[in-house]
Amino acid sequence: MMVDKKNLEKKYSIGVDLGGTNIVSAIVNYQGKIVSRLKVPTLAEKGKEATVKRIIEAIHKNIAQSTITPDDIIGIGIGAPGPLDIKRGIINFAPNLPGWRDIPLKKILEDEFNMKIVLENDANAAAWGERCFGAGQGINNLVCFTLGTGIGGGIIIDGKIYHGNNCGAGELGHMTVNKDGPRCNCGNYGCLEAFSSATGIKNRIKSRIKEGIKSDFLNFDSDDELLDSIRLKSIFETARKGDKLTKDIVKEAISYLGIAIANITNILNPEMVVLVGGITNEGDKLLIPLKEEVKKRAFYSNYKSLKIVIGELGGNAGVLGAAALLWIPVNRSY
Amino acid sequence: MMVDKKNLEKKYSIGVDLGGTNIVSAIVNYQGKIVSRLKVPTLAEKGKEATVKRIIEAIHKNIAQSTITPDDIIGIGIGAPGPLDIKRGIINFAPNLPGWRDIPLKKILEDEFNMKIVLENDANAAAWGERCFGAGQGINNLVCFTLGTGIGGGIIIDGKIYHGNNCGAGELGHMTVNKDGPRCNCGNYGCLEAFSSATGIKNRIKSRIKEGIKSDFLNFDSDDELLDSIRLKSIFETARKGDKLTKDIVKEAISYLGIAIANITNILNPEMVVLVGGITNEGDKLLIPLKEEVKKRAFYSNYKSLKIVIGELGGNAGVLGAAALLWIPVNRSY
Repeated sequence: MMVDKKNLEKKYSIGVDLGGTNIVSAIVNYQGKIVSRLKVPTLAEKGKEATVKRIIEAIHKNIAQSTITPDDIIGIGIGAPGPLDIKRGIINFAPNLPGWRDIPLKKILEDEFNMKIVLENDANAAAWGERCFGAGQGINNLVCFTLGTGIGGGIIIDGKIYHGNNCGAGELGHMTVNKDGPRCNCGNYGCLEAFSSATGIKNRIKSRIKEGIKSDFLNFDSDDELLDSIRLKSIFETARKGDKLTKDIVKEAISYLGIAIANITNILNPEMVVLVGGITNEGDKLLIPLKEEVKKRAFYSNYKSLKIVIGELGGNAGVLGAAALLWIPVNRSY
Repeated sequence: MMVDKKNLEKKYSIGVDLGGTNIVSAIVNYQGKIVSRLKVPTLAEKGKEATVKRIIEAIHKNIAQSTITPDDIIGIGIGAPGPLDIKRGIINFAPNLPGWRDIPLKKILEDEFNMKIVLENDANAAAWGERCFGAGQGINNLVCFTLGTGIGGGIIIDGKIYHGNNCGAGELGHMTVNKDGPRCNCGNYGCLEAFSSATGIKNRIKSRIKEGIKSDFLNFDSDDELLDSIRLKSIFETARKGDKLTKDIVKEAISYLGIAIANITNILNPEMVVLVGGITNEGDKLLIPLKEEVKKRAFYSNYKSLKIVIGELGGNAGVLGAAALLWIPVNRSY
């Protein structure tokens, strides 16, 4: 479907963020404004057919609850966990979606909606969202770290999402930052994710407690479930109150994230690093020590020209980026 | 100067590799064949004017000793140590060339030779050489590690040299691989270069000896100069003979290089990693343990699709790449 730019400006696209916990669907206009948004639980445990059905239902409901007619929607972008075959629109495998193996999601949704469907890695979608509508507007070389349960990344080079040889680029959470570090979910040892993700931070606290180290404030001892339910915010607050155990772990998490950003700075010399995800709620309490670490470790001229910022789209970076995939298809590097 | 392709195939370009020790100039044809080559000592200690004069003399001599007339030469490419201002053709600073600060080498050579002059970072030139005429022919996403006295890198993305925001991309030797590692020349601690470059390996041996650890084979004790003069080849041979001191250091050097390649594999998902420089003379004795480390640490799908190879151009990667900058100017990403 070819639409001229003037016409395009009156159109909408749908962004879908397919997560292990929730499916978010949003109808988005050309300026990146969400005109209608819907969140439903993924219920991944009910199996892949049920989840695919829920995705379809969520999109239909999202359209129905809005005032937009399907004729004004140019397509649907999906941000999904990887590994993906982006070209063919297939989700090869998704650790958080049990049973998902080689699901041709693009084809399924094309058949259902008869619209252009674009599939993208969820971290790339978040990076693209910040690039198009958030902190990275107008920035052509940008790296986005998605800091959540795990750590992902999206790389924008020359204004396009960089996918690499077989759509595997941007696995920033699996940079080895300490070869003797703890085992990561990916099987490697000492990945950034094992130190600086929410799960990594909690696991590090658990293992210290198991070693017999006591927290002065948190009273979870060896109760893993209690710790799992504690929000990252509380851990950071406890660290700031002076609890040595959590303080050490949080300090280390920020330090390794700084090392990873410094490495990206020396390797890719981007104009901007955008941080998104739960941990960024800490604001300057995260940014200030982080920048210190990057400054200490990156080449000065690369550091000096780098902006390290927190994303502006909050939890909507993914859906907005997924929706934006439809607007500027020429900017996709495949 | 516009030349059609048929005409271009009968033309030549000059590649210059400006090093701290030697200046190499080579006249190269369209197929990457060196038709005339000249090497002169840089004599950097005589000062910048003297070195610039030696560069000019070397190029003139190289042309004179060949059968090529200046009319058949389309331009001169210079691979130079950084940091550089590639767009303006200025060498900002070069640690191995004392007194070099903001030298407008492009302008100087344009005035002298009245030809198109292109300046490029030396590691990027080596990467470009391997991409155009060596191991990476036809490969569009490629990362080259230059493993010498120091460690540099060149990144080819979508068939073009990737420069980053201000020409600082590709500093692969300054990836932090161990935050508590030895101090690097760049001021940071635990850079890849401090572990896996020739200098890094020698410094690690020296510091072990200073700690009182004895080598069973090498008899240099604390004589730093003797160790400096020993070739990397002898260190690897000594390690293979079973000398624990050198064996540990060599093993660690390869392991950290493997970590750096695994990180690049997870970040950029390139099709190929090309290794150039002295250490690659070890061939499979380097490649086999290196690939094992990368396999252990990189995402399997990224590793599986990756070729890790030794460059095919040996010490000529730099001059050939510098010469090749003239052939495919459209492939420069600025």
